[in-house]
Amino acid sequence: MHAITLPTFGGPEALVWDEVPDPRPGPGEVLVDVAASAVNRADVLQRKGHYPPPPGASAYPGLECSGRIAELGEGVSGWSVGAEVCALLSGGGYAERVAVPSGQLLPIPIGIELVAAAALPEVTCTVWSNIVALAGLRVGETLLVHGGSSGIGTMAIQLGVALGARVCVTAGSAAKLAACRDLGADVTVDYRNEDFVERVKAATDGRGADVVLDNMGAAYLARNVDVLATGGRLVVIGMQGGSSAELDLGVLLRKRASVSATGLRGRPATGPGSKAEIVAAVRAQVWPLIEAGRVRPVIDQVLPMAEAARAHELLEGSGHIGKIVLAVRAGDRRGEG
Amino acid sequence: MHAITLPTFGGPEALVWDEVPDPRPGPGEVLVDVAASAVNRADVLQRKGHYPPPPGASAYPGLECSGRIAELGEGVSGWSVGAEVCALLSGGGYAERVAVPSGQLLPIPIGIELVAAAALPEVTCTVWSNIVALAGLRVGETLLVHGGSSGIGTMAIQLGVALGARVCVTAGSAAKLAACRDLGADVTVDYRNEDFVERVKAATDGRGADVVLDNMGAAYLARNVDVLATGGRLVVIGMQGGSSAELDLGVLLRKRASVSATGLRGRPATGPGSKAEIVAAVRAQVWPLIEAGRVRPVIDQVLPMAEAARAHELLEGSGHIGKIVLAVRAGDRRGEG
Repeated sequence: MHAITLPTFGGPEALVWDEVPDPRPGPGEVLVDVAASAVNRADVLQRKGHYPPPPGASAYPGLECSGRIAELGEGVSGWSVGAEVCALLSGGGYAERVAVPSGQLLPIPIGIELVAAAALPEVTCTVWSNIVALAGLRVGETLLVHGGSSGIGTMAIQLGVALGARVCVTAGSAAKLAACRDLGADVTVDYRNEDFVERVKAATDGRGADVVLDNMGAAYLARNVDVLATGGRLVVIGMQGGSSAELDLGVLLRKRASVSATGLRGRPATGPGSKAEIVAAVRAQVWPLIEAGRVRPVIDQVLPMAEAARAHELLEGSGHIGKIVLAVRAGDRRGEG
Repeated sequence: MHAITLPTFGGPEALVWDEVPDPRPGPGEVLVDVAASAVNRADVLQRKGHYPPPPGASAYPGLECSGRIAELGEGVSGWSVGAEVCALLSGGGYAERVAVPSGQLLPIPIGIELVAAAALPEVTCTVWSNIVALAGLRVGETLLVHGGSSGIGTMAIQLGVALGARVCVTAGSAAKLAACRDLGADVTVDYRNEDFVERVKAATDGRGADVVLDNMGAAYLARNVDVLATGGRLVVIGMQGGSSAELDLGVLLRKRASVSATGLRGRPATGPGSKAEIVAAVRAQVWPLIEAGRVRPVIDQVLPMAEAARAHELLEGSGHIGKIVLAVRAGDRRGEG
């Protein structure tokens, strides 16, 4: 098969479409003929050599895919060859074939094209596990989403709204803020020239945000704690602004607030806190919202997988809104739009 | 009535036993003839002028008491005059009488003396709300309790063991560590000459602690994050080592861990996250453990309430093990032992 390999670490040009051996499905795994994958920030870190795959994962980038089941490994039940699926991966999605633990498979939601479904696993699992399973977002609460126009951001807005929360976002251009409003964001903050703490407090009679979903890490830590309401929960899922910063526990204590940080990739395949547990919850709780048309994948564009380098350039340029998808076959670009 | 007043802020001598007007029970409140109160670190902060009572609270110190119901305010049901009770207070426990929202009352557990019961409300509510309601301590997990011989610490050890956790503690003398072991602590660390991170990791095959209950704040933040297991929860309830310190979100993210900080006193009387909610959970979940003899109040000594200054000196001297109780009547010192 072909896959995007990383003969050396470096810029986007380090991503090379090459012929490699086919993966084999181990016990409990399924082999998927990949239709599409999608790009995540973690792939960029991996490309630069800063984010090695966890033990046992594929060496190729790609944390999600859609496709058709080609073969069932030993002991797999509930899935059949030829079925269209999408999947949360520990790696290896930038390829024509990938082996996936069966607990990480999801059916294609009714009404979603096969290629577009490649944009769903990472954002739905990340957003659900953080704002619902971890932070326990409740009806009527205020959710602040940083990077509202990113893949994660566009899903967090929609899920927050579907769960009955009021959603505030930050983003860095008028077009991005407009896209966030279209998805249901109520308060949109241009971080280039507005202070999100001030704007969110003004919009909530001084209360602040009950849940903050953050991708900036250190750079926003103090302001994120400042913007939290009493009982607020800050969840850090990215550190684009560094990892270490001063935390004032006194402020946290007065607010009875919490700071958590999580990732998906390092989670075990099965057991408590596993990928399979999150995938099962997403299938039960998020898939019906997608099938009802209340939540949809937001796709900036679909590129041929062999052009993964261009996709990384686009992601790093930060001009996109939503997900950038990589389709294996040029004809398979129905997710575009 | 008499109460310990604070005519000026300062050292223990600032605590003056004086004649003051009786409190009146408002709607939903109960007037309690106090048998005893108990000393908390927050009382010391209040005495020094660093911890003003929340709006509406009594100006006198004292966050818990036991006694007999003297009068029911308007609209109170389920309690009767003459009943023996203990109560979680927002202040005013160092007095002969105190008015308490009825949701903060607890019956005296069967088998516990009236005076000794004054040592229960703060520690049971603090420990329960943090290690169970917030951190979700589970059977088989490892709980690290800093200040294991304190009032909070002695209750946290017992509750942790009763909930099926393995308990590790830090404390600062051989006598304190022995007391912690008697209460069920499995790993006891002398913080004066041992590294708790090293000891707890060695005792858990490198995994670390699933839940850490901390009273040191800034001074321990980095090491507390270091000692956390994957999925670990650090809960800060005191800042005896300062409030601001560097937090490495990258370490937190790799562990999928959280840092929370909470207090009891600032919580509302009723509603979500309220004192009444915590008191109801403690009555349902902790009182049966006390009545079964699996958890008991640990009392260092009982002093006359008029000698509150001496009680504060003892607390600040840190030689005590468990709670220091203040009894209104000299004969009412049955909790001693």
